[in-house]
Amino acid sequence: MTEQPRTADIGFARLDPDRAARTGTPEVVFAGGKTPAETVGCLAGLLDAGAPLAWATRVDGPTAAAVLERWPEAHVDPVGRVAWVGTPPPPVGEVLVLTAGTSDGAVAAEVAATLAASGVGCRRVDDVGVAGVHRVLAVARDLAAADAVVVVAGMDGALPSVVAGLTDRLVVAVPTSVGYGAAFEGLAALLTMLTACAPGVLVVNIDNGFGAGVAAARIVRSAHR
Amino acid sequence: MTEQPRTADIGFARLDPDRAARTGTPEVVFAGGKTPAETVGCLAGLLDAGAPLAWATRVDGPTAAAVLERWPEAHVDPVGRVAWVGTPPPPVGEVLVLTAGTSDGAVAAEVAATLAASGVGCRRVDDVGVAGVHRVLAVARDLAAADAVVVVAGMDGALPSVVAGLTDRLVVAVPTSVGYGAAFEGLAALLTMLTACAPGVLVVNIDNGFGAGVAAARIVRSAHR
Amino acid sequence: MTEQPRTADIGFARLDPDRAARTGTPEVVFAGGKTPAETVGCLAGLLDAGAPLAWATRVDGPTAAAVLERWPEAHVDPVGRVAWVGTPPPPVGEVLVLTAGTSDGAVAAEVAATLAASGVGCRRVDDVGVAGVHRVLAVARDLAAADAVVVVAGMDGALPSVVAGLTDRLVVAVPTSVGYGAAFEGLAALLTMLTACAPGVLVVNIDNGFGAGVAAARIVRSAHR
Amino acid sequence: MTEQPRTADIGFARLDPDRAARTGTPEVVFAGGKTPAETVGCLAGLLDAGAPLAWATRVDGPTAAAVLERWPEAHVDPVGRVAWVGTPPPPVGEVLVLTAGTSDGAVAAEVAATLAASGVGCRRVDDVGVAGVHRVLAVARDLAAADAVVVVAGMDGALPSVVAGLTDRLVVAVPTSVGYGAAFEGLAALLTMLTACAPGVLVVNIDNGFGAGVAAARIVRSAHR
Amino acid sequence: MTEQPRTADIGFARLDPDRAARTGTPEVVFAGGKTPAETVGCLAGLLDAGAPLAWATRVDGPTAAAVLERWPEAHVDPVGRVAWVGTPPPPVGEVLVLTAGTSDGAVAAEVAATLAASGVGCRRVDDVGVAGVHRVLAVARDLAAADAVVVVAGMDGALPSVVAGLTDRLVVAVPTSVGYGAAFEGLAALLTMLTACAPGVLVVNIDNGFGAGVAAARIVRSAHR
Amino acid sequence: MTEQPRTADIGFARLDPDRAARTGTPEVVFAGGKTPAETVGCLAGLLDAGAPLAWATRVDGPTAAAVLERWPEAHVDPVGRVAWVGTPPPPVGEVLVLTAGTSDGAVAAEVAATLAASGVGCRRVDDVGVAGVHRVLAVARDLAAADAVVVVAGMDGALPSVVAGLTDRLVVAVPTSVGYGAAFEGLAALLTMLTACAPGVLVVNIDNGFGAGVAAARIVRSAHR
Amino acid sequence: MTEQPRTADIGFARLDPDRAARTGTPEVVFAGGKTPAETVGCLAGLLDAGAPLAWATRVDGPTAAAVLERWPEAHVDPVGRVAWVGTPPPPVGEVLVLTAGTSDGAVAAEVAATLAASGVGCRRVDDVGVAGVHRVLAVARDLAAADAVVVVAGMDGALPSVVAGLTDRLVVAVPTSVGYGAAFEGLAALLTMLTACAPGVLVVNIDNGFGAGVAAARIVRSAHR
Amino acid sequence: MTEQPRTADIGFARLDPDRAARTGTPEVVFAGGKTPAETVGCLAGLLDAGAPLAWATRVDGPTAAAVLERWPEAHVDPVGRVAWVGTPPPPVGEVLVLTAGTSDGAVAAEVAATLAASGVGCRRVDDVGVAGVHRVLAVARDLAAADAVVVVAGMDGALPSVVAGLTDRLVVAVPTSVGYGAAFEGLAALLTMLTACAPGVLVVNIDNGFGAGVAAARIVRSAHR
Repeated sequence: MTEQPRTADIGFARLDPDRAARTGTPEVVFAGGKTPAETVGCLAGLLDAGAPLAWATRVDGPTAAAVLERWPEAHVDPVGRVAWVGTPPPPVGEVLVLTAGTSDGAVAAEVAATLAASGVGCRRVDDVGVAGVHRVLAVARDLAAADAVVVVAGMDGALPSVVAGLTDRLVVAVPTSVGYGAAFEGLAALLTMLTACAPGVLVVNIDNGFGAGVAAARIVRSAHR
Repeated sequence: MTEQPRTADIGFARLDPDRAARTGTPEVVFAGGKTPAETVGCLAGLLDAGAPLAWATRVDGPTAAAVLERWPEAHVDPVGRVAWVGTPPPPVGEVLVLTAGTSDGAVAAEVAATLAASGVGCRRVDDVGVAGVHRVLAVARDLAAADAVVVVAGMDGALPSVVAGLTDRLVVAVPTSVGYGAAFEGLAALLTMLTACAPGVLVVNIDNGFGAGVAAARIVRSAHR
Repeated sequence: MTEQPRTADIGFARLDPDRAARTGTPEVVFAGGKTPAETVGCLAGLLDAGAPLAWATRVDGPTAAAVLERWPEAHVDPVGRVAWVGTPPPPVGEVLVLTAGTSDGAVAAEVAATLAASGVGCRRVDDVGVAGVHRVLAVARDLAAADAVVVVAGMDGALPSVVAGLTDRLVVAVPTSVGYGAAFEGLAALLTMLTACAPGVLVVNIDNGFGAGVAAARIVRSAHR
Repeated sequence: MTEQPRTADIGFARLDPDRAARTGTPEVVFAGGKTPAETVGCLAGLLDAGAPLAWATRVDGPTAAAVLERWPEAHVDPVGRVAWVGTPPPPVGEVLVLTAGTSDGAVAAEVAATLAASGVGCRRVDDVGVAGVHRVLAVARDLAAADAVVVVAGMDGALPSVVAGLTDRLVVAVPTSVGYGAAFEGLAALLTMLTACAPGVLVVNIDNGFGAGVAAARIVRSAHR
Repeated sequence: MTEQPRTADIGFARLDPDRAARTGTPEVVFAGGKTPAETVGCLAGLLDAGAPLAWATRVDGPTAAAVLERWPEAHVDPVGRVAWVGTPPPPVGEVLVLTAGTSDGAVAAEVAATLAASGVGCRRVDDVGVAGVHRVLAVARDLAAADAVVVVAGMDGALPSVVAGLTDRLVVAVPTSVGYGAAFEGLAALLTMLTACAPGVLVVNIDNGFGAGVAAARIVRSAHR
Repeated sequence: MTEQPRTADIGFARLDPDRAARTGTPEVVFAGGKTPAETVGCLAGLLDAGAPLAWATRVDGPTAAAVLERWPEAHVDPVGRVAWVGTPPPPVGEVLVLTAGTSDGAVAAEVAATLAASGVGCRRVDDVGVAGVHRVLAVARDLAAADAVVVVAGMDGALPSVVAGLTDRLVVAVPTSVGYGAAFEGLAALLTMLTACAPGVLVVNIDNGFGAGVAAARIVRSAHR
Repeated sequence: MTEQPRTADIGFARLDPDRAARTGTPEVVFAGGKTPAETVGCLAGLLDAGAPLAWATRVDGPTAAAVLERWPEAHVDPVGRVAWVGTPPPPVGEVLVLTAGTSDGAVAAEVAATLAASGVGCRRVDDVGVAGVHRVLAVARDLAAADAVVVVAGMDGALPSVVAGLTDRLVVAVPTSVGYGAAFEGLAALLTMLTACAPGVLVVNIDNGFGAGVAAARIVRSAHR
Repeated sequence: MTEQPRTADIGFARLDPDRAARTGTPEVVFAGGKTPAETVGCLAGLLDAGAPLAWATRVDGPTAAAVLERWPEAHVDPVGRVAWVGTPPPPVGEVLVLTAGTSDGAVAAEVAATLAASGVGCRRVDDVGVAGVHRVLAVARDLAAADAVVVVAGMDGALPSVVAGLTDRLVVAVPTSVGYGAAFEGLAALLTMLTACAPGVLVVNIDNGFGAGVAAARIVRSAHR
């Protein structure tokens, strides 16, 4: 820490342009709770400070429109609610992204977009629920080919337990808010994943595809360093 | 309900000696929160009222000793904490009882003792956790041979979801308090089972091997009526 | 498991067309969290794979319209939010479906539609709340005639405890989200049912009429095998 | 409030000797969390301030011994954990105290002792659980004869809902911590009682027999004023 | 219970027309979760069965309109969301209804309407919060004149503890969902009231002005019998 | 308390015009759950009773419009949702208000408006999250210059722990509902702040910028008395 | 932060000897979860690093004995479970410490010991519960004389709401785990205090007398600077 | 999965001897809830099936004694409660293990023992709490030298958020049950870590040092493959 990191003060925010140098991932704008103008302002501030890629998550429709109006060349993923301006690094390695059901697709899309922005390869296989466990066994080859695995599941959240017993790759588990009643907006899946009977499972917040993607990217970069 | 059911008033309790006729299961004494003398008194009251079998659950050491002192011929299962006086009916049918781990054994023992007292056959296979899912697949033949399945699991409680996707038998799921931290004394497993992605799973209270056994016995009797 | 079950890959989903053979119930599409097009696509995929009946739950208005546009002959139950394409098997046996109040009707309708799609008979008696317990006693004859009982109740969820003390049939209890305040969206009823003082009660997730129907159908088929 | 109520300062406590005049019930010492000496000191302070009856709840063995050593004539109820020094008023009226099971007896004993200390009559009928609902119907005559009803129940806590549908008396519901697992130390019964489908049910804290007794005494005194 | 209570079957509901005779309060229609037509149907069914007064709670705008269209002479309270058809009995006695803040007014209106429909007098004093405790002390005279007290409070729910220390009347405490954050939709106030340090406080469900009114009416009738 | 505080009865509310004299802060109208007319009525009542400044929080758009229609000279802060009529006292001292992220800005605006209305100086530095901890270290000089510190943070709520280890000023921590999933509407941040490993942190309710501002003003006035 | 703070590495711990200079309070050893030897080692390490006063909280019997064996001159408060070696600064100012009941005494003792170690004066008045609200009004003079107020209360936790409406001093509220059932180990009191209807209340963790004392000391020092 | 994994049936357990080949970590015996004899039996069964290292966690005193009696050469770590028989692989790489306080030491010891048994290097720095944030900054060099970081913290659980902002290594966060009151046995720290404002944080169950160690070993092996 001999050199003090810089702070870019843009009035309503104090940006951290050296975060990519410190952590491998730039400061990414969380658009939830911000106005479209605030999100655009933060992205512009990061680009002004020299970032090659400025990036936001939880981008709803109006914010996506504001981004595209300012930067028509921006990349916007409306399912994963991710937007970026600039060019991500070329991809290295491969993360296998599994979903338990098609309703988990939006969160998996956020994982995939995060990996793309991070310059990490991604292979996605959807709808591999444990109610038809042969579908899980069928991805054994994909597991062996991946650097890390991200498992996205709502309702009972049981899939990571089964997957982690089939592979020596780290399993990043993402509980989703899919389900109703005793699913309690993802709490059931979260607790299941935290208490997985197979070790090698690490957990992120409910619906946090971004966090899972960043973590998986760190693992891949560590393996390809 | 043309005939009013009888009530046997023994002072500190009002017994329901006709419950077996109404529901197929006699009133069973819950020894938790009762003194040994109270449990013995309830059992005696039921026998006095003509019950062929008097039966208690959650029987700790002192209560077991009190039961055996009064009725040396009593049957006591110290693992399942069940005691009975009298002779159960001869067994019909078969319930498959699976546990996810050996730590779930005490609850499975309560299931097995309940089935025995109910006159229903039981086959038990322990330690079939999903972290080695081939162990689950290996019981396919047992599933096909059973009238009903009871699955006992703590921690992530994921086993019933996998089992219910492999069989057309009803799956009675028993969450156990095995685990720590976010297992929250069985809450995690309970929520997992309630939100199981495979239908055909019905759930009882945490550690309630007795309730699972009674329910499974009803299914078996229904199939063998 | 000598023959490996098939998987039907339709791009955004991987269907399990052999589930009916394995479990007695086909893969049923959970329309919650899916677009109308995704639900229609899943139903079409299941029919393409040879299923005689393709079936979805949690079908809202737009999805129902999309199903009817594709298959004008489809059956849609707007109260129970169930839709199916094809012909269910002819009904066998009878499940008695009780509700504690008329506000529980939508969940009971999901139970009834599930039974119909499963080829199981259904008799429904509504508004049998314990605040007028003579109404419960009045269904004693219906209890005796049924193969299994499904009890649907919100608020205090007390009805299954009373019913299970009157019958030797298995009682499948469905807590509903009817109520306010300390009902906590069905949590109160769920806990009541899990701790029912009468054994023979098994519980499904809050508002899960589908799961209750599938379970009851398994019991009936077991009794009529 | 023209006259300011007195405060009796005994060093480690500031007693409220005029509370009986204001509220009909004297300040009652909560012995939980106090040393035996503190409880004895509080009782002595109240007697010194002129109270005809000094009274403590949650009295464990050592505290009971300390009370009896100081006042050999004291009344101690070891089941209800209540002790008093002095003479209660002669009883008026009658409260019917029902328990769902014999394990609820300690809480019912606290209700009964509170009524006795308050000068209110008490009739107690135990083990009236809804699993044998004819036992509830059998107390109809007792309900009609009472000024108020206190219902003590753990596990599912369903009894007050049934009782309140059978009587025009106010039903004071006391959830108990009897049960395990999803009973959550009385939370399940508490929520059931708060959401009782029959009106006329009022609820006190879990295991709070004292509060139920004081409230029932107020109702009785109101009726006999 | 020599005479069996009647049941009025109106197809989608089974009404309990003898409940007023049994409990002092007729079956009251809970309009939450019912269509306007269902609520009107239930009210009509109760009138057809001979009830002098048919009554519904949780009546929203469309339901109120439907009631008034069928019975233009109906009484509708849009704040308390109560509607009735027929003439309530003339009022006896008096219940004092206190609110902690003006935001609790809708729940207090439900209490007042319930008392009116029950034929019980009501005196209401609003905005008596403990942050200005002299306002509480100022109602001492009203407390002494009342047969019972209903206290309606959200946020910290502290008012019943203070009031119960000032009166010998029974205090019926109604927690409301007023507040935000750690008020948790009324949970904070509910727990406060259940653990009130002053005895003589009984609690109903969050926002349950109806239940508080029915209970207070039972107390008043008991005092004026 | 020799002089009894006054109560201003305006029909639907009982105002406490002497609260500023007692507590340093006037009664402030909580507009949440009140109609615009009720809020205007309360403000008018306070002004009529002689208050130099009448003030409301949680002021939404329609209420702000109603205030401005009645008093065109009123001050309205649409971000902090605060409105006042009259002139605040001139500012003394300085409170440093820190936010962890720009999404916490609305709550910080409520703090700032409360300080302004209270006549206390405010310095605000936004977006000082611990993910770039050098930004926290950079405010050391601001900490030393302040009389008290208010820290506003959602998500993990970690900022107060770090700040309190850098200063001898009291740290008032405000958890916000910013975040999703396991943030549980601010619960995660609330628990973090309550368990802060550094002493000197005091906590207010989730999103309660008003409470934090009033408390900070008391500290400042205490220091400048 | 021009000078980097020192770290004293004693093997199993890394002490922070400059914390008193930074924050006004030295690093205080939390003895909970530490062996007596570890606590003694930490205290010795702090003294070795030049601290004039080394101090520990949550000191149980064995740890107190170990401290006194090493430093016979140490000060140990067995009720407040606080120990220190060295001489606290002479007291300035005064904090008023109120308890709602005598059972809250241990937590109040921790507050008092913390103030003593911090060199701040303390006046304590116990048993000022709101069930006898005149006892609260009677401390008005003490409130006016204090620099800050600490209110310690369990069960309903209502006392801070009443106190904060009577004074312009900051009120530091300490919920305690005194109570049972729905008190949920102090959760009820915690929520009450967080939602106090009177502003000017700040809250610490349940039973955290140390945190309340440190915060009150900061306020007093701020006022006497 | 061409070769079916083996199952070693030892009567009361069904061991999974090929798990190391599949997942890199052998089946590790969870001694919690098992008798010493059961744990010894499982270890023996794994050795009999050819495992080079048999290993158990949550080993209490009696179980440790039983292990050492059977295998005197066994390695037992009484702080981390880990035991193994056989020789771990030689260490590769390095994981940095940080604790927030010395009370977190037992969990960190479980992490360290797990790494040792897994053949992965470990560097441990204790007592790096954020209340003295310079201690965190001082480990920057250690962070850069590690393959992965494990952060162990109780109470507020804030340390992972700060660490993850300083490094590009994956941060495995372990919440501990250290703390009291609103720490809720580790729940507060768990929620903090799940909602960490810095990405790159993955979370395991409360006190789950074993799971963190296995996950970190997978990352290291992935980097050194």
